[in-house]
Amino acid sequence: MELDPWKISDISNYEQLFNFGMRSFSPFHSHYSDNRYMRRGIIFGHRDFEKIDRAISRKEPFIMMTGLMPSGRFHFGHKMVADEIVWFQGKGARVYIAIADIESYLMRGVPLDIAKKIALEEYIANYIALGLDPERSHFWFQSSYRPEYYRLSDMAAQEITLNELRAIYGDLTPSKIISVLKQVSDILHAQLPELEGKLPTVVPVGADQDPHIRLTRDIASRLSRTYDFELPSATFHRFMEGLQGGKMSSSDQKSYIALTESPESAKKKVMSAKTGGRETADEQRRLGGVPEQCVVYKLYYYHLVDDDREMERIYNECKTGAILCGECKRRCASMLEDFLQNHQEKMRAARDTAKQVISEQRSEFGGEK
Amino acid sequence: MELDPWKISDISNYEQLFNFGMRSFSPFHSHYSDNRYMRRGIIFGHRDFEKIDRAISRKEPFIMMTGLMPSGRFHFGHKMVADEIVWFQGKGARVYIAIADIESYLMRGVPLDIAKKIALEEYIANYIALGLDPERSHFWFQSSYRPEYYRLSDMAAQEITLNELRAIYGDLTPSKIISVLKQVSDILHAQLPELEGKLPTVVPVGADQDPHIRLTRDIASRLSRTYDFELPSATFHRFMEGLQGGKMSSSDQKSYIALTESPESAKKKVMSAKTGGRETADEQRRLGGVPEQCVVYKLYYYHLVDDDREMERIYNECKTGAILCGECKRRCASMLEDFLQNHQEKMRAARDTAKQVISEQRSEFGGEK
Repeated sequence: MELDPWKISDISNYEQLFNFGMRSFSPFHSHYSDNRYMRRGIIFGHRDFEKIDRAISRKEPFIMMTGLMPSGRFHFGHKMVADEIVWFQGKGARVYIAIADIESYLMRGVPLDIAKKIALEEYIANYIALGLDPERSHFWFQSSYRPEYYRLSDMAAQEITLNELRAIYGDLTPSKIISVLKQVSDILHAQLPELEGKLPTVVPVGADQDPHIRLTRDIASRLSRTYDFELPSATFHRFMEGLQGGKMSSSDQKSYIALTESPESAKKKVMSAKTGGRETADEQRRLGGVPEQCVVYKLYYYHLVDDDREMERIYNECKTGAILCGECKRRCASMLEDFLQNHQEKMRAARDTAKQVISEQRSEFGGEK
Repeated sequence: MELDPWKISDISNYEQLFNFGMRSFSPFHSHYSDNRYMRRGIIFGHRDFEKIDRAISRKEPFIMMTGLMPSGRFHFGHKMVADEIVWFQGKGARVYIAIADIESYLMRGVPLDIAKKIALEEYIANYIALGLDPERSHFWFQSSYRPEYYRLSDMAAQEITLNELRAIYGDLTPSKIISVLKQVSDILHAQLPELEGKLPTVVPVGADQDPHIRLTRDIASRLSRTYDFELPSATFHRFMEGLQGGKMSSSDQKSYIALTESPESAKKKVMSAKTGGRETADEQRRLGGVPEQCVVYKLYYYHLVDDDREMERIYNECKTGAILCGECKRRCASMLEDFLQNHQEKMRAARDTAKQVISEQRSEFGGEK
């Protein structure tokens, strides 16, 4: 069964990344059949994942690090990362989650108190509702943390030139430089002797984040006079497309469904989503639809349908013209409704848990703002 | 009496600074006759010193901030700043002293542990031996401090452009940018609500530091959406010349006398210092010397002779040819010997005090390295 209709077309899109040392995730796809994103090739690339694979299979310690930039609502694009975090935690990862409030202040002008509210009530609450165990997760705000974290970020400045940064990030500003240096410390600092010590570290990211992963790996090896880091590993996933095609982005309401959105609103968005349908019903019955171009299909594929056989059935129904877009969308909306109701019930408790855990972990560093 | 032979010539050198809003310190010279540097015009310029003058005369709280860059030995050039700190502390200032170890790492490659040793054993111990009360002084390492300090430094990045930085500091590197942002927070953070709150702040510096003071004032006012700072004031002093003319610099052994140098070595350096003597003894007896060009004279003027009448006598002796350079140098070396012996006796206890005070203040922030 050719279950993944994007595999070929997408790998040709993402293929150029492999030139820079990113490698195909396919050797691991079958190994982690319990992970939908891995099994279906949505996670398509990696760097040094062998280290993580080894740690998981030997039940040895490793770190899973991710960062969240608190701006806008938590949507199905963000859910992919959340699911990956939860999965890695299940595999024994020590979970480290940066709340990138300095970055969102510098790059998007979000005030720190707003960023804090969004981080807690949107992102972390959703992570918890999606299955994250917050007690076994380490959170920090870039704006308020331990001195080793800042020391590492500052010392990393010595290891890069403005030209290198310009080659990766285009036009520079002091804000961009600070954001990059904070990210480097976000990824590496868990390996400091004061925290976990030197350990394999995996960062699950979208493909567009690879330049940053490469830079962090370069800096980590250049810092070897002073620090002793395992070069961080990464997995790379494809993006969840926006509902109208293009990018799913929290700055465009029509492009996303938030996990806290009302089922009615979500249904409306699904009903007007871009599909792979034909011009007329008649044509579609004759030629079949094009699931490869359909956002509704992607919602099933990424998020709503875990059973591969059911997924195959849906794919074939579309391809053979056995189902038309209207009916398919109603089915999708109904699944979505179930998911959202269930999820939003969990959110009530999750919001309280988020606040409590963060305030406990935060009090350690002082500097409440 | 024209006591200050450099007043005219030097003001013409430093005059261009007044174009950028620096103002002459002369209105305050007579007001602070207990301060040798002020009285003699060695402190020649200021920004917003009125605020500090007012706080001193009304016995209202104000902050004195300075930074030390731990590299090399503590010499008579550094002593000027130390004397100013001690004087401001005597006038009621809340003393804040940055140990710029991140800057010395980034700009000069000094490892943090070496920087710490130099800061304690050279700089702070000498400050204490020169009269600083360490218990009433607040010290911090840039590499290991409270989160508010880093937050301010990071948020300041939003308020400047690379072009502005380039105009002040020339070619930029990430290291230079980080150093500048750290300095901004060094100067401003004592005014945070978690510390002293908004208060007049004076930074005593050499004239070359004015661009940095201006930048910090600009950033402080641009940060007013988020923070509430009194724009920092500054005093500007002339440099203590090096023993061979030029700059007194810790990277050139022959240019300085360290406060921990043996009296014998100090004597040798004085005996070979650049003077304002004539070609021959005969000529000097006839025409007199040129104290304006004499480093030995500056040692008296800045450091060794506090009595203005004695200073006048020395000046006239030289001008009239009543004394030749050899004899004058021996007198200087003998005064220096007395000073160094006395000072170095105090240094023994001061080193222990320095270590103790710093380790007490440091334990507050954790992150010992």
